[in-house]
Amino acid sequence: MTGRPAGPDDLTLTLSNARAERVKKVAALAGRSARSRAGQFLVEGPQGVREAVLHAPARVRDLYLTADARDRYGDIVTSALASEVWVHLATDEVVTAMSADAQGILAVVDTAGASFDDVIAAQPRLVAVLSNVRDPGNAGTVIRVADAAGADAVVLAGDSVDLTNPKVVRSTAGSLFHLPVVRAPLAEATLALAGAGLTILAADGSGTVELGQDGADNAALARATAWVFGNEAWGLSDDDLSFVDTVVRIPIYGKAESLNLATAASVCLYASAAAHRS
Amino acid sequence: MTGRPAGPDDLTLTLSNARAERVKKVAALAGRSARSRAGQFLVEGPQGVREAVLHAPARVRDLYLTADARDRYGDIVTSALASEVWVHLATDEVVTAMSADAQGILAVVDTAGASFDDVIAAQPRLVAVLSNVRDPGNAGTVIRVADAAGADAVVLAGDSVDLTNPKVVRSTAGSLFHLPVVRAPLAEATLALAGAGLTILAADGSGTVELGQDGADNAALARATAWVFGNEAWGLSDDDLSFVDTVVRIPIYGKAESLNLATAASVCLYASAAAHRS
Repeated sequence: MTGRPAGPDDLTLTLSNARAERVKKVAALAGRSARSRAGQFLVEGPQGVREAVLHAPARVRDLYLTADARDRYGDIVTSALASEVWVHLATDEVVTAMSADAQGILAVVDTAGASFDDVIAAQPRLVAVLSNVRDPGNAGTVIRVADAAGADAVVLAGDSVDLTNPKVVRSTAGSLFHLPVVRAPLAEATLALAGAGLTILAADGSGTVELGQDGADNAALARATAWVFGNEAWGLSDDDLSFVDTVVRIPIYGKAESLNLATAASVCLYASAAAHRS
Repeated sequence: MTGRPAGPDDLTLTLSNARAERVKKVAALAGRSARSRAGQFLVEGPQGVREAVLHAPARVRDLYLTADARDRYGDIVTSALASEVWVHLATDEVVTAMSADAQGILAVVDTAGASFDDVIAAQPRLVAVLSNVRDPGNAGTVIRVADAAGADAVVLAGDSVDLTNPKVVRSTAGSLFHLPVVRAPLAEATLALAGAGLTILAADGSGTVELGQDGADNAALARATAWVFGNEAWGLSDDDLSFVDTVVRIPIYGKAESLNLATAASVCLYASAAAHRS
């Protein structure tokens, strides 16, 4: 690409006006309607930007960073330039005006990624489905755990939080670029996943089968599995549970009433990951 | 106790002045120095208050609630009165002045609980040790997971967050009344736990032993175990790791760099819980 810099040291300052139209447009992506109109969202901070550049470079429209960030994160700049991402050196003032949470570096990324049909076509073995998960931090943490446990995809169902919400993006710690995270209604998602041969399990305190208990039902863990997790406050509705093959209860050995969403998901997904490899 | 009400319907409105000295004293417990001086802290909301009343009634100094909360949480009032807890019916204004997060009901509870010596004397089989865990929500969530996994105690070591911080209290969802949560320096805690026969494991990405891997090292899980978890951002220092028998790595099957603190703790503690029962 003629005229593009070859390495971090070739970058020259191109953005110094914090009131420029481009700066305002990037900052506006903090809002859902602007993200929806633009079909783009913000990735803030070195960890998220690094993962976007390494795992989804074709979706990265622009990378903005300060001189200090260029010096600290030369690896990110080198990877970005090698993948023909546009890298813009900007003043601290400009980057801060774009996002207060950038830590000196941020990227504008295309929202469009994999579709639910892509997920099914890839014959997944382990999928996490979030039904009506509203808290951005919880949703992001579950996406990160699903990634760590080797899940093939995450499905956001019902009235779950917008994946491109900056708090969701930050709390995934880059995992949203590691596996497909798609949106589909719960009925449609569970039907298609079952059709693709997955057993549909739900984690819920009302479950009659206990996770890790010996018996035929837990043999399901060794098979291809989709785990459905419900809202952080009220769990899964009876309607949600009607789409599920088996409702599984995480054993509570102490006096706690329940686990929170992210810790419950980590126990279930790691149980499946272990069963798939035993 | 003569003169005390026998049931929820016997309560009469006793507090209606939101500027009363008593109201100010309760509200002041939001601050660490006031809590330290008083030796008391706040438990806000029905879930936490219920668990305090059921599991640590001797530590509950006063319970304040609105007429609406009395009607909704009659079970809590009945339990409290049966345990000779002082229950005060107050106006909405008074309860809100005491705490914006009370949801109509709050309790003032004595800080003094179990000591680290009590924990050792009880011959624990599973203990979670938090070293320099700073975020109140993380600390509270780990206490809740430790409770659910049947741990016998949680130890707050190093510069970990104050257990009586209202955000910690809320995020434990009552678990801080289910098991001893004590404070001790890491060196002293690990030495005493090892002396009591526990294997000291740390969860850290630098670990050479993988959790759940077959082999002699994982047989440790079936024995009495203390798990040491580090700070949410920088993990465990080399100094911290020097107090540990084995550093264990949670397997990452996908592309995530790591798990966050609470999800890592849930995987480790549930692995121990399962090993203790297999």
